[in-house]
Amino acid sequence: MNNIITLNHGSGGRITHDLITNLFLKYFDNDKLRGLTDSTIVDFPGGSLAFTTDGYVVDPIFFPGGNIGKLAVCGTINDLAVSGATPKYLSSSFFLEEGLSLDILEEIVKSMAEEAKKAGVSIITGDTKVVPKGKCDKIFINTSGVGFLKDEFRSIGDGLSVKPGDKLIINGTLGDHAIAILASRESLKFETEIISDCATLNSLIQNALDVCPEIAFMRDATRGGLATVACELASKTRTGIILDEKAIPVKESVQAICEIFGFDPLFLANEGKVLMVVPAEKAEIVLKTLQVNPLGIDAAIIGEVTAENTGKVVLKTITGGKRLVDIPAGSQLPRIC
Amino acid sequence: MNNIITLNHGSGGRITHDLITNLFLKYFDNDKLRGLTDSTIVDFPGGSLAFTTDGYVVDPIFFPGGNIGKLAVCGTINDLAVSGATPKYLSSSFFLEEGLSLDILEEIVKSMAEEAKKAGVSIITGDTKVVPKGKCDKIFINTSGVGFLKDEFRSIGDGLSVKPGDKLIINGTLGDHAIAILASRESLKFETEIISDCATLNSLIQNALDVCPEIAFMRDATRGGLATVACELASKTRTGIILDEKAIPVKESVQAICEIFGFDPLFLANEGKVLMVVPAEKAEIVLKTLQVNPLGIDAAIIGEVTAENTGKVVLKTITGGKRLVDIPAGSQLPRIC
Repeated sequence: MNNIITLNHGSGGRITHDLITNLFLKYFDNDKLRGLTDSTIVDFPGGSLAFTTDGYVVDPIFFPGGNIGKLAVCGTINDLAVSGATPKYLSSSFFLEEGLSLDILEEIVKSMAEEAKKAGVSIITGDTKVVPKGKCDKIFINTSGVGFLKDEFRSIGDGLSVKPGDKLIINGTLGDHAIAILASRESLKFETEIISDCATLNSLIQNALDVCPEIAFMRDATRGGLATVACELASKTRTGIILDEKAIPVKESVQAICEIFGFDPLFLANEGKVLMVVPAEKAEIVLKTLQVNPLGIDAAIIGEVTAENTGKVVLKTITGGKRLVDIPAGSQLPRIC
Repeated sequence: MNNIITLNHGSGGRITHDLITNLFLKYFDNDKLRGLTDSTIVDFPGGSLAFTTDGYVVDPIFFPGGNIGKLAVCGTINDLAVSGATPKYLSSSFFLEEGLSLDILEEIVKSMAEEAKKAGVSIITGDTKVVPKGKCDKIFINTSGVGFLKDEFRSIGDGLSVKPGDKLIINGTLGDHAIAILASRESLKFETEIISDCATLNSLIQNALDVCPEIAFMRDATRGGLATVACELASKTRTGIILDEKAIPVKESVQAICEIFGFDPLFLANEGKVLMVVPAEKAEIVLKTLQVNPLGIDAAIIGEVTAENTGKVVLKTITGGKRLVDIPAGSQLPRIC
């Protein structure tokens, strides 16, 4: 086998089979994947099923703190976890450009396996397509995921029980992922290297649910950032949201770069940040619980749900003013995930 | 909204939201998708769950008998159905090239909705990414699917109950999809237009399971064709397989083109053909059942499982000879699905 991906790797013939056996099975190995059947069958103990999908096209495919494979596993696991589900199984579907180095693919696949294992999730079905050189940019990945959901958590994804007085909590600093991507794309050198926050949040979220099963809403603040999540929540639940800029954690180095480039951390993508909305009386215990987890050290209460300004998000600025926060029309940085 | 896809359609901001609302929700509309939550929650009455995924990169994206969207729905539904599962829910994940016409995207999405509806399946979660012009070829799609599986059908995907004497049945002519793609790619004009067999097979398969719950194995003969499915089955079950070339249905027009291009219909991709392995005493009733369905009119018994030649597939040729059939190293036609 030569050390580059060729069209034959996606042919469905023997070379595809070798790739599956020698690479994907090597890292993803589990008894369900090993059957290599068209569909993978999983036991289901009853209850509800969560099912999600995401495509990943991040550029560059390697960046400080991760790569496209790690991102593809973390992102989809987080999409399950923020719905209140326990992530169980992932699919992985690769779109590969002819000529991609197998070493690079292996490194990506390895990261996927590691992240999945860390999160207690199995990748149980997959697919590979190869397109001619110039018809795709190195590698795109889709991961889909299924998880089990307890009935008591069914409303978390919708936020239907969000009510005025509830507190907004974020588990750490904003914008790290976006700025890490920007820096590696532009080959910028900063005094402090900025590392993507790319991480699986399911165990952190489980910790929070353990102390506060009444979490009213969760969402990971990826493309569009915290601002977009907050705006969508306000719009959907017909409540108002007030954010306290002073309380929102942003690394100094990220803030500095935002000022140079004219970015607002509120809108920057994160890959390891979840917004939680919890009843006021539970805010402190959730905060403390998050802060003892390495993924929640910088957690903070950053705002509140209000009965006024329904459908709107208001930012109380550091200087004491107030301004409306709206969903941006486009992206500050394309191909961020 | 201009009539082309821009980077902003994949930004996660308002323009993305508009695209989802105005296009995907318009066609896929159902109460589960409408929530636009990170994960979609579905009731599950108990039993086993089937979960599958596939990426689609067919070139050209429109071809006689279908397009990439129809293919993406049919292919994934079929992957569930051949496992003995009842397909229930699909995800759809789009990779779009900046500059793609919205009209084209709409046509594709519409086909997806139509095929899903026909098959009784809902598309309940999705994602869209856009990459700069030249970084992907118009559109790639991933669909993943989940289905419910009765315990009695759990061994169908593995073929573990396949035994010598079982009959092989195919539901119609081979190679139509591959030749339809070839013809549209090369702008070949044939006397008879060759149409892809792209179709959802779940109801046909259900008909067969109704009269023969003992079906020992099923698989759709896509990339790699019937030959690859037969070889993988022989290898996995440690049985021999004999195929009767005379009995294998191939359209005259397809056969003629195969002779010109040096293709073998056994290896050509299909998108509406399933190989079934059934106990000998049930072969006739399954055949008759398939033949009354428009998707099974040309169904035929094409071979048998043998105790000899374990792990091998032998073709009894039209001229009376015998030859070994092996999985091809690569593809006769890249980007066929």
